[in-house]
Amino acid sequence: MPDPAPGSRPTLEAVAARAGVSRATVSRVVNGGAGVRQPLVDKVRRAVEELGYIPNHAARTLVTRRNGAVAVIIAEPEFRVFSDPFFEQQVRGISRELTAHDSQLVLLWVEGPGDYDRISRYLGGGHVDGALAFSVHNDDELPSVIRRVQVPAVFGGRPGWPGAAAEPAFPYVDCDNRGGAREAVRHLLSLGRERIAHIAGPRDQTSAIDRIDGYRDVLLDADAGLIAQGDFTVESGARAMAELLERRPDLDAVFAANDLMASGALRVLRERGLRVPEDVALVGFDDMASVVAATEPALTTVRQDIEGMGRLMVRLLMRVLNQAEPGAGAPGSVITPTELVRRASA
Amino acid sequence: MPDPAPGSRPTLEAVAARAGVSRATVSRVVNGGAGVRQPLVDKVRRAVEELGYIPNHAARTLVTRRNGAVAVIIAEPEFRVFSDPFFEQQVRGISRELTAHDSQLVLLWVEGPGDYDRISRYLGGGHVDGALAFSVHNDDELPSVIRRVQVPAVFGGRPGWPGAAAEPAFPYVDCDNRGGAREAVRHLLSLGRERIAHIAGPRDQTSAIDRIDGYRDVLLDADAGLIAQGDFTVESGARAMAELLERRPDLDAVFAANDLMASGALRVLRERGLRVPEDVALVGFDDMASVVAATEPALTTVRQDIEGMGRLMVRLLMRVLNQAEPGAGAPGSVITPTELVRRASA
Repeated sequence: MPDPAPGSRPTLEAVAARAGVSRATVSRVVNGGAGVRQPLVDKVRRAVEELGYIPNHAARTLVTRRNGAVAVIIAEPEFRVFSDPFFEQQVRGISRELTAHDSQLVLLWVEGPGDYDRISRYLGGGHVDGALAFSVHNDDELPSVIRRVQVPAVFGGRPGWPGAAAEPAFPYVDCDNRGGAREAVRHLLSLGRERIAHIAGPRDQTSAIDRIDGYRDVLLDADAGLIAQGDFTVESGARAMAELLERRPDLDAVFAANDLMASGALRVLRERGLRVPEDVALVGFDDMASVVAATEPALTTVRQDIEGMGRLMVRLLMRVLNQAEPGAGAPGSVITPTELVRRASA
Repeated sequence: MPDPAPGSRPTLEAVAARAGVSRATVSRVVNGGAGVRQPLVDKVRRAVEELGYIPNHAARTLVTRRNGAVAVIIAEPEFRVFSDPFFEQQVRGISRELTAHDSQLVLLWVEGPGDYDRISRYLGGGHVDGALAFSVHNDDELPSVIRRVQVPAVFGGRPGWPGAAAEPAFPYVDCDNRGGAREAVRHLLSLGRERIAHIAGPRDQTSAIDRIDGYRDVLLDADAGLIAQGDFTVESGARAMAELLERRPDLDAVFAANDLMASGALRVLRERGLRVPEDVALVGFDDMASVVAATEPALTTVRQDIEGMGRLMVRLLMRVLNQAEPGAGAPGSVITPTELVRRASA
């Protein structure tokens, strides 16, 4: 890589003159070369090399004020990002929709609070046009980082920090978590189940809170002993199931707040020799293809359109970015419907 | 978000005057606020809001010419990125090392050649200080994109495109694929195996080519019928194993070019009622914890330090970025050693 002394940096004009082409052609070539004929690309590249020109790309952002890139920020550590198929599905939807808008997806995650200084500098550095944030916990610093650096953002999942409802600057996409949970529990009741347990997700995420609320909406006098705490991972589902069987060996149904925890619960039920659905009926939440395909019996679950929600997040963000355009109002949040998918486990 | 009319953009100076603080303080606040006391942060944020100031972050890049961010580009589609634990491990090493250098990791992947125009614009846009590229196939456009936009880059895996060896501008980190493969095959020979098959990886990746070369180094007269083609996925390993058993039902050992393919092969061997290692001994490559933990019997494999290689890629890139510093020579590529890990399968 050429490394000219500072102060002697050759200009775009010098490259254009050397190559015998227009400034616009040089600019197109150094910005990727799309639409420029190969002989011209070669000429410009030769001039670039001979002069040791380093393109001053940042200048472009000053003019267009658009970067053509969007940050996807998952507020979870890397091991969760790569092991939870939920993120993969949502990122897939986002990726396809961003491609359709010719915008580059850049994925970031958060190992811990110590990362926010750096992420803040990155987001404030003008490298992305906006951010899509998901798996934000209620005490997460991410919303205040986003507020501070003023990057347009859309949230995946209803924000739950104090005062979030009064912040229309943060639109979100979520599914009807509470309604879906109600439907799951009503289904178990309709099968004649009487002692329906719940494996809850993290207490600091609204999706988990809304699902436990939906469970309580239907079972108004639910025994607290029938509720166990998980964190949306397979292992936590297994642990919660073991706890529940210890406390309430007479339970005859379980509604788990996601499919991963349901699959962990299923493993424990089988280890204990309990038949699903005969002894214990089981319902999950998400309809995650890779999880559901692996359960035996097939898992009854509440379907949410995860990929579709990812696409919707991008569309909302694009509306935020185009707010200045005539006729485009401030976008509102979107709640997508859920659907009970009946399979063998309940 | 405030949306002032173009042309009326308030300046940093105006914000500083309104808030009664220095330009430097405003600059720190709009760049993330690290190290500024909360009352000052509040004052500046109030002034920013009142004036509708939009920080012109791109200007900062013009001055410092460092973005504090590095792109990790995996030349595979999203479903591979999220399903192959190899990428997770390498990204983990990269992530930790970049954090140690206070640099933000942004992850990109490549669904297909159609993505390169956009990626090229992003990389050329001056948003990252460098790029770490891996899983680059020999006919991939990525190297020419990187060359064109002149972003400093380090490759994971030896580049295999024509002429790559003569391009010292592209240092890489790789393991001793060929030596590791030789050790695997010699081990199978030492167990008295006589018909050792190979499940090869993609023909257009040097890691796969080097491993098949290592196999052939030891088995100079290996029967071509004992070699089957895979693509590093579990499913391709299963397919290749079925093919091999069809062609050579007398085989007594298999060396698979990675652990994922070995696990697919193991599934097929078991389905056919063949005992491992009694009837067929099996060796993989990678020592991928999540795969090895799930195989029964435990998989003998060639270990490479994937996470460590990720860290090395970052250190090499940092040396490239600091090349202008006195005493820092141009960094060379690094080949890390492999080690045979003997478990039950061979």
